[in-house]
Amino acid sequence: MERTLYWEDDKLYLIDQRILPHKIEYYECTNYHEAIEAIKTMVVRGAPAIGVSAAYAMALAEVEGVHLNAAADEIKQARPTAVNLFWAVDKVLEAVKNGETAVNTAIEMEKEDISINKRIGEYGNEVIDKNDTILTHCNAGALACAGYGTALGVIRAAHEAHKNIRVICDETRPVLQGARLSVFEMQQENIPVKLIVDGAAGHMMQKGLVDKVVIGADRVAKGGVANKIGSLMVALAAKRYDVPFYVAAPISTFDYENDIFDVTIEQRNKDEVLKINDKYITKKETEVENPAFDIVESDLITGIITEEGIKKAL
Amino acid sequence: MERTLYWEDDKLYLIDQRILPHKIEYYECTNYHEAIEAIKTMVVRGAPAIGVSAAYAMALAEVEGVHLNAAADEIKQARPTAVNLFWAVDKVLEAVKNGETAVNTAIEMEKEDISINKRIGEYGNEVIDKNDTILTHCNAGALACAGYGTALGVIRAAHEAHKNIRVICDETRPVLQGARLSVFEMQQENIPVKLIVDGAAGHMMQKGLVDKVVIGADRVAKGGVANKIGSLMVALAAKRYDVPFYVAAPISTFDYENDIFDVTIEQRNKDEVLKINDKYITKKETEVENPAFDIVESDLITGIITEEGIKKAL
Repeated sequence: MERTLYWEDDKLYLIDQRILPHKIEYYECTNYHEAIEAIKTMVVRGAPAIGVSAAYAMALAEVEGVHLNAAADEIKQARPTAVNLFWAVDKVLEAVKNGETAVNTAIEMEKEDISINKRIGEYGNEVIDKNDTILTHCNAGALACAGYGTALGVIRAAHEAHKNIRVICDETRPVLQGARLSVFEMQQENIPVKLIVDGAAGHMMQKGLVDKVVIGADRVAKGGVANKIGSLMVALAAKRYDVPFYVAAPISTFDYENDIFDVTIEQRNKDEVLKINDKYITKKETEVENPAFDIVESDLITGIITEEGIKKAL
Repeated sequence: MERTLYWEDDKLYLIDQRILPHKIEYYECTNYHEAIEAIKTMVVRGAPAIGVSAAYAMALAEVEGVHLNAAADEIKQARPTAVNLFWAVDKVLEAVKNGETAVNTAIEMEKEDISINKRIGEYGNEVIDKNDTILTHCNAGALACAGYGTALGVIRAAHEAHKNIRVICDETRPVLQGARLSVFEMQQENIPVKLIVDGAAGHMMQKGLVDKVVIGADRVAKGGVANKIGSLMVALAAKRYDVPFYVAAPISTFDYENDIFDVTIEQRNKDEVLKINDKYITKKETEVENPAFDIVESDLITGIITEEGIKKAL
């Protein structure tokens, strides 16, 4: 599996997730503004990967000699929903206050993210049975993290435990992270995978073709989980057809202060919906609503798989 | 609004729905095999429009001098799920047995379809309130019928009654009938319309932004309704958030003989999912499951709007 990101010679390299799986190219950030731009334009995406990238954006600011508090304020504006972004920036500020460098802190956070994901995988593997078919939405994989993945980390762990699992990925419009990224990760690992359109998840569960659902999270807070648009409809189908519905997420995704319905749901550009493969699917002046996330209410969630074990939704 | 289909000089002309709304072109059928091909390849789609096209396919066979029973058997193989196809072919055979021509019968069925849709619109309008926002899935519009539409016929009737309604269309992957056809029809009628991805319907209902859901049907039978893939997930969200969920369909869509779960769900080509705008969205060897329809169970349906009034699901 290619690396999601790496730090070399005081520069941050991010695999460009906008062009995967067709091309494997790294996007070079030589200053923190380029890192912010990469987060905004979804060169890098996925809550944990956004967190680690934000830490490296702080590292770039340090290398540039920019005042870190000012840089922190700018970096926090990049995207509003994933709490890991704010958590990571604050963690770097705190470390610097304690005499550590931002660069070393970011490098440690990258390593720590992978080790957390492996622990999530171990706990998650406990709820996966032999021969399970697992449905996942969007990409909470190695590409959404520094490596290994949260939801796909659970799937990797079950695969490594020879459980003969199969995976169904829905495509996850509008940005197609399921089709482009999760399918790609499964194919790289030789895990049997099938692609469906988002609208087909209910049908698959109604027909008894799904044993578990595992997704990631952009934020866990009181009342539910914010995750990629479409997660709610998958959860409602899982509830209807008694399919256990798990969220896999590190503790850094937990927001104990806010109600989930008070979290800002990012509205993204209408062209994400209107254009696919550089062509309009309908008239370009069409009005669009393009929320990037939705809320899965707590009663729909079987458990949240964290590096500290499986927890109840807040 | 352009005509979905018309008969002229012993030929059938179908608006080519595969290239709408970008180009308006008519596909000419000079023999019944071309009409079958048009149904198979979705030049024409939508249960009532498939029915009328099948009747005209019989008319073409008559003009060709082909034995009508043999033609009927072939036409019925075109697609498996919409019951209107079988109903229309049998209706033509019956009329011919009674001394009518297939051509005249098909012409009458075309007119009758529009008049049925207008009656569906009248009954449906009664459940629509002023200022309602109505969500629809796929295209059960003029383009899915000989004209006017079933679900979009209800919306047209409410608009004609000056109810100040708004419409949300989900895009309806894989073939994007919502984005390409329903949005286009609404724009042609100057009815305010917004496009969302399929995964966003639950979010819109959770936020209270949808007052009613109205969709079409490919078959109504004991236990539920078969309709475009994704209908089930919309219905589950409507149930969760107490949004009335209506199906609009002519009586010809009703199958009183079979259980809905015994109906064949057509599996279509994987390239419908893998390719958008002529480019692959992920690696072309990816495995795909592509069911064209799903089943909305009867308990999820508020009512079925027919030309004979609003009925309970079977």
